[in-house]
Amino acid sequence: MTDTASTAAKVPTLCVVGTMAFDDVETPFGKREAILGGSATYFGVAASYFADVGASSVVGADFPDAFRAVLADHGIDLAGVDVKPEGKTFHWSGRYEGAMEQAETLETDLNVLLEFDPVLPEAFRRAPYVFLANTDPSIQLKVLDQLEDPKLVVMDTMNLWIEHTREKLLEVLPRVDGLMINDAEARMLTGESNLILAGKEILRLGPRFVIVKKGEHGSFLFSADRLFALPSYPLENVVDPTGAGDSFAGGTMGYLASVQETGIDDICRAMVHGTVVASFTCSDFSLDALANLDRPTIDRRVVELQDFVRVP
Amino acid sequence: MTDTASTAAKVPTLCVVGTMAFDDVETPFGKREAILGGSATYFGVAASYFADVGASSVVGADFPDAFRAVLADHGIDLAGVDVKPEGKTFHWSGRYEGAMEQAETLETDLNVLLEFDPVLPEAFRRAPYVFLANTDPSIQLKVLDQLEDPKLVVMDTMNLWIEHTREKLLEVLPRVDGLMINDAEARMLTGESNLILAGKEILRLGPRFVIVKKGEHGSFLFSADRLFALPSYPLENVVDPTGAGDSFAGGTMGYLASVQETGIDDICRAMVHGTVVASFTCSDFSLDALANLDRPTIDRRVVELQDFVRVP
Repeated sequence: MTDTASTAAKVPTLCVVGTMAFDDVETPFGKREAILGGSATYFGVAASYFADVGASSVVGADFPDAFRAVLADHGIDLAGVDVKPEGKTFHWSGRYEGAMEQAETLETDLNVLLEFDPVLPEAFRRAPYVFLANTDPSIQLKVLDQLEDPKLVVMDTMNLWIEHTREKLLEVLPRVDGLMINDAEARMLTGESNLILAGKEILRLGPRFVIVKKGEHGSFLFSADRLFALPSYPLENVVDPTGAGDSFAGGTMGYLASVQETGIDDICRAMVHGTVVASFTCSDFSLDALANLDRPTIDRRVVELQDFVRVP
Repeated sequence: MTDTASTAAKVPTLCVVGTMAFDDVETPFGKREAILGGSATYFGVAASYFADVGASSVVGADFPDAFRAVLADHGIDLAGVDVKPEGKTFHWSGRYEGAMEQAETLETDLNVLLEFDPVLPEAFRRAPYVFLANTDPSIQLKVLDQLEDPKLVVMDTMNLWIEHTREKLLEVLPRVDGLMINDAEARMLTGESNLILAGKEILRLGPRFVIVKKGEHGSFLFSADRLFALPSYPLENVVDPTGAGDSFAGGTMGYLASVQETGIDDICRAMVHGTVVASFTCSDFSLDALANLDRPTIDRRVVELQDFVRVP
């Protein structure tokens, strides 16, 4: 009893609220069905190499023990994962072609995601670092209301919310420290085709910094006094880019949680780590590569990426 | 007489062989007709801020004195420009839409370009730095045959030659030090969709280094022992990207000619200068911005670009 109670009460350094999913994925390198996916999954495992993570999500009774084990083996606290005994887990089906710049979504079965109403475990509410993965902004607002004085809150979003729940999204933005968003979404959110102007415009919507993700072209950081560009890691075996964005976020937030910092220079260094972790994700299906890393393996690529961008 | 003779005999540090053109350009920011364009034009003026340039090209009798003056005012030696009294200057017409990633060619009137058979002035043949802008590989081979022990020869090419005169192109590649090529062309040349593999594959075709230009996403350098990535300068006012690639090449080669170096680290630094010069080109139509620079203005952006990519 005491043991369980003290375990339950442990405050994770980093809390993520997002999805856990079955993915069907087809790329020029193969086809996989019902593999482990979801934003909280990729984020959680990516972050686990740097910090202790608590995950809040929702799954159905069909979510297999083997998938839970992948997360638990990485020390992820699953106390925030709501299991709906009558429900089915969120299921995404997509395809990539050619240079795999963009996924074509073939099917989305939201299933239990329609009932997602995250109630964070007490301990999670005191997590100093929090990532709100891509979900309905109303859910993101509810999570924000539960947090107790976090040091750093970063969110993701997508075209769906920008188009259909824009007003809610504009309520969330001033309440977070940072926004991670892809380039097309940054343009859509601001109506500005120039990406530099779009990034600066988003700062006016509230967050202290914006990280624009550009897939194989890397990422940009925008803040009041710093612009920073980082390419993606020069990967020769891109097999499946699914989860790269969430892995990038996980590596970035995990690194920040590990150094206990929130400054812009720290965020730049964190992006290097996020980029490297995302590169492993892309090199195989699902979490097959991501889940089999260690810190020295990551750190070797961090050095390579730093060399890649260093002006001599 | 003596004066003219000694002027004619001056060996330019950097020689470019390419086009001079009338361009019609339409972008979301406006429409211009019969403006100054062409690869040797953009390259020459871009390079002129760093080194003395000799240009080899061909124009018709319709090429206006005002256009010659833009080049001459930048100290570009036009002794290699063949004027065809009966001919009309090469004319390109194109349009950019949206984020202006790519030009749609509306019309191409090759005109005198069909007769282009560059015979380099004696002095040009001894130029230590040479750029073979995008032309028929047969022409590039003829130019190579005229060169006397250059220190560094770099070439450009395009989809047309990759598709239709591939064998000739493969003859040129082992005879140059470097290839500049855009990302789509690198993929086309190698049949490899992964850009990192494509870059490495091109090295096997002969050149010591390859610079892959990715437009707004910057550029990659590939060599046997160095990969280097550089983003484009974070420009807020992209008005017309025409000539950006040739300006990048001009700034890069001009910088190398100015420091009299050919090493890979020097080439990385040169790319920073090329990127900055290209950013000015994009900020207005034709050479309107490019032709009105000075070295301190360029160097300020060089510092900004270095800050932009520096991992703190």
